[in-house]
Amino acid sequence: MKLIRVNMTDQTVQVEDVPQQYAGLGGRGLTSVMIDAEVPPQCDPLGPENKLILAPGLLSGTPLVNTGRISIGAKSPLTGGIKESNSGGKIATSLGKLGITAIVVEGRSPAGTLGMLVIDPSGNAVLKDASALKGMRTYALSAKLLQDFGPKNTVACIGPAGELQLASASIQTTDVDDRPCRAAARGGLGAVMGAKGLKAVVVSTEGKNADAIADPEAFKEAAKAIAQSIQKNPFTGQMLPALGTAGILGGVNALGAFPSYNATKGVFDGWEKISGEALAKRMQERGGKTKHMGCSQCIIHCSNEYVDEKGAYVTSSLEYETIWSMGGMIGVDDLDTIAQLDFLCDDIGLDTINTGVAMAVAMDAGHKPFGDGAAAIAMVEEVALGTDFGKILGNGPVAVGKHFNHHRVPAVKGQSIAAYDPRAMQGLGVTYATSTMGADHTAGNLLGLYLAGALKPLEPEGQADASRVAQITMAALDCIGLCILAGGVVASAKGREAMTRMLSAKLGQEMAPDAISAMGVRILQAEKGFNTKAGLTAKDDRLPRFFYEEPLPPHNTVFTVTDADLDKVYTFR
Amino acid sequence: MKLIRVNMTDQTVQVEDVPQQYAGLGGRGLTSVMIDAEVPPQCDPLGPENKLILAPGLLSGTPLVNTGRISIGAKSPLTGGIKESNSGGKIATSLGKLGITAIVVEGRSPAGTLGMLVIDPSGNAVLKDASALKGMRTYALSAKLLQDFGPKNTVACIGPAGELQLASASIQTTDVDDRPCRAAARGGLGAVMGAKGLKAVVVSTEGKNADAIADPEAFKEAAKAIAQSIQKNPFTGQMLPALGTAGILGGVNALGAFPSYNATKGVFDGWEKISGEALAKRMQERGGKTKHMGCSQCIIHCSNEYVDEKGAYVTSSLEYETIWSMGGMIGVDDLDTIAQLDFLCDDIGLDTINTGVAMAVAMDAGHKPFGDGAAAIAMVEEVALGTDFGKILGNGPVAVGKHFNHHRVPAVKGQSIAAYDPRAMQGLGVTYATSTMGADHTAGNLLGLYLAGALKPLEPEGQADASRVAQITMAALDCIGLCILAGGVVASAKGREAMTRMLSAKLGQEMAPDAISAMGVRILQAEKGFNTKAGLTAKDDRLPRFFYEEPLPPHNTVFTVTDADLDKVYTFR
Repeated sequence: MKLIRVNMTDQTVQVEDVPQQYAGLGGRGLTSVMIDAEVPPQCDPLGPENKLILAPGLLSGTPLVNTGRISIGAKSPLTGGIKESNSGGKIATSLGKLGITAIVVEGRSPAGTLGMLVIDPSGNAVLKDASALKGMRTYALSAKLLQDFGPKNTVACIGPAGELQLASASIQTTDVDDRPCRAAARGGLGAVMGAKGLKAVVVSTEGKNADAIADPEAFKEAAKAIAQSIQKNPFTGQMLPALGTAGILGGVNALGAFPSYNATKGVFDGWEKISGEALAKRMQERGGKTKHMGCSQCIIHCSNEYVDEKGAYVTSSLEYETIWSMGGMIGVDDLDTIAQLDFLCDDIGLDTINTGVAMAVAMDAGHKPFGDGAAAIAMVEEVALGTDFGKILGNGPVAVGKHFNHHRVPAVKGQSIAAYDPRAMQGLGVTYATSTMGADHTAGNLLGLYLAGALKPLEPEGQADASRVAQITMAALDCIGLCILAGGVVASAKGREAMTRMLSAKLGQEMAPDAISAMGVRILQAEKGFNTKAGLTAKDDRLPRFFYEEPLPPHNTVFTVTDADLDKVYTFR
Repeated sequence: MKLIRVNMTDQTVQVEDVPQQYAGLGGRGLTSVMIDAEVPPQCDPLGPENKLILAPGLLSGTPLVNTGRISIGAKSPLTGGIKESNSGGKIATSLGKLGITAIVVEGRSPAGTLGMLVIDPSGNAVLKDASALKGMRTYALSAKLLQDFGPKNTVACIGPAGELQLASASIQTTDVDDRPCRAAARGGLGAVMGAKGLKAVVVSTEGKNADAIADPEAFKEAAKAIAQSIQKNPFTGQMLPALGTAGILGGVNALGAFPSYNATKGVFDGWEKISGEALAKRMQERGGKTKHMGCSQCIIHCSNEYVDEKGAYVTSSLEYETIWSMGGMIGVDDLDTIAQLDFLCDDIGLDTINTGVAMAVAMDAGHKPFGDGAAAIAMVEEVALGTDFGKILGNGPVAVGKHFNHHRVPAVKGQSIAAYDPRAMQGLGVTYATSTMGADHTAGNLLGLYLAGALKPLEPEGQADASRVAQITMAALDCIGLCILAGGVVASAKGREAMTRMLSAKLGQEMAPDAISAMGVRILQAEKGFNTKAGLTAKDDRLPRFFYEEPLPPHNTVFTVTDADLDKVYTFR
């Protein structure tokens, strides 16, 4: 139960007890409430007044499965609003085991210098000079740091994109195999870290000071129920281990909602070449891995290890969204190219979604032909080099659209959509439009409802209400630190009740039956409040015009949810 | 009393009577009220829904002196709000004499094509193919068009910057010597013209269909009084003819309000080398011209013709603001370099103010050293070439600041300030912050009050009220078509009364004594209404942070007008 405050300006590290106002919060709950309380809403996201907050989930570091998620928050240079970006790997669990509730990075290091924060097994944090690491890409950097500080550490770091303070820059975290392939990718938080002059955070994985659980027996019992529920569910128990997140590609494509060629088509011709099935088959043939464990305490194992024809490592955690943004969206149907682009983005420290969509916009504007994988690789390399065009690309699709005067830019609040077209999945459009995060598929994803037939994807009715419910639940899960893929457990009354019991057992206070919803609402309200003070208005809660005007084949529908419906998403009873 | 509507999409030209709702309006009054009524506020400024409106002043084409001003309006790609950009030359008088109240350009020409509008001595307008003129700079283009269509024409046109749809692109108009050195420079209206696919407008200067004056005798009498007042005033009668607008440079610099080196200093060391006195002296020595007439019916003659050491033409209408933006702001104290930069901007079709400030931001960020004139020339040439950096520069200081992650960007609503620092002339800061146009020194310039000692430049008191009055008056003058420099005539009760009589005589209806103010308020309200619907809020009515935080030498003051004061500027009784 302690906060580590790092002041980059005067290079000091202070430890404080978690103030009462933040008690009972973790993950996104803590980052968002804290940013709302401590960051001037109108500040420059890349200036010293912004704060970068790394907070493991409320249950990260406890024995509960699938709680290895960390929330990283700040005011976003991409959206101009509040941002929580979520990553896996080992860091959340490690911080939890050290009894560290959050790391708060403030100020800005002296010009030209870089620092790194190193936390030892006792939880002592020291700021060290890292100026010599300038320009290093994340794979080499992580390997070096784990050599210097020993293998029983985990790393969160930025690559060249973060140092260049580009709005698509990510913060990469190392996975269970010590590869920096997990990313707090969205919203340009790597640029905030770069602006602060912080190159890396090294955290010991050997902590033994986890906060006490008030009622260990009750906790254990509920944790067991949740783990069983995850294993029994066909999605988390069978599909994801077999095919990874890419397993949903076929279904989304069949629904005509797989935005291809910069969202001009809803079905991608080459979909079978880049599907989860194709990926699994290829890795079987080549000796790569599926059913790979990416995050601490994960029992789903949705990750993978992608190898080339000779069996050499290419990348890990090749996800559905990346296969879309670096595949269908730019017209590439070759998994080897996509895997290489995924590795490059991880290594340079770039959001694969925003970067792929930025390239799609460039291609749509005629800069390069769709499907030109070599051109895509060269473009991503330009970002690392910091060429003029590379910086434009690294600032995301809106910057690219502006550069080419191209109108078809699938982004909200500056952030690109993900692999679900809002014209064929109207509720995703509601989430993209209204989320405090900008277009964000994780903020309230309704795919499960569409696949289950519980909501009609093409009709506007019911989408706003469904999105609101999903957004509330997701905010709570991000606070708890539970993986989104395991989040389905709280969809049932029984699962939700078990989770509520677990929170009660952890915090030592009886939670109300609606505690999870209340937690989600509190977070969304803090975020919305911050965004309003930052100057965002209802007009920022809209999809770009072309989604309303250009029908998407094959359904040839447009986005039809009304503004009135969008404006009521953030009304909570 | 007719509107010419040009539809670029279907390549048609239609003539219609001025609708009743626009009666009694000209210039900025007409463009702003019409944009507010006809342009969807949230449209893409570079899309087909935007309209580009060219409207001579209400009294342009009448015998009144100094009424050769045209207003060009549209939704601005630079500010995202409404825009009126004002230019001189011969076109306003020519349109007035043809009885044309406005040209309204709508839609967008077929991809890859360019058109031009040609208006003959009878006022007939024809749209012609101009695809062959693609890429031409404005001097060569104007010369060619005046050769093709005859010398008794005047031209408004765009250069490469407009074709590239850059946010600093201007529309250039030919002066009385047929040089395209007059500019509707601000707000990127050249980009709107380029987006519509309109390369040029050619207007006969031989029109004889001017709208009737209802009471010619009363008009003549009042016009005479106004002309006398302009000639008797020492500013318009003596200083401006002798030194041009650059004549104010010494005074502004002495007040410590001449923003230099990207607004880090308020006094420019080399000011004497670039002052109006230095300019006049040099032109005398070389055989250039001062006291040059730039606009039809002008009796002030503030323009000049700048020649090089050998007496060869370099540029015309080298103004104070350009001498600042291409001089003190980028640390250049060499008039020859400044004159060359001015010519280049006119030729490429670029706002000298926005472009100079964009270069100043780039230099401040370390891209090139301050004072490097050769680098500045190379940078401006890059805009014409359309290189990646050239496009960034051509999109103005905010784009450059974003590219270099540089915080010191002296711009409001995307548009750069002009040659008066708001920390040393607080009221200019009020105008920059609150004007519907973005930072705009012409929208409400209080320099006269400071020089006369009627208002203290460094103190916040009274600035908001003074700015409001000036903004109202200026909006009215822009509606009438009177040159800003002659605008002082309405400062006196007698002059204002004469102007009101003149409007009564022209329109044939008795105007109320406060008609001029009422006209100004109506225009500002229409503009503010449009901006609000476009999504601009009070937070857009603020100066950038550094003006509040970084004291400007030599007074070492910051901008201290309160937000509350700023927010009451647009309250009208």
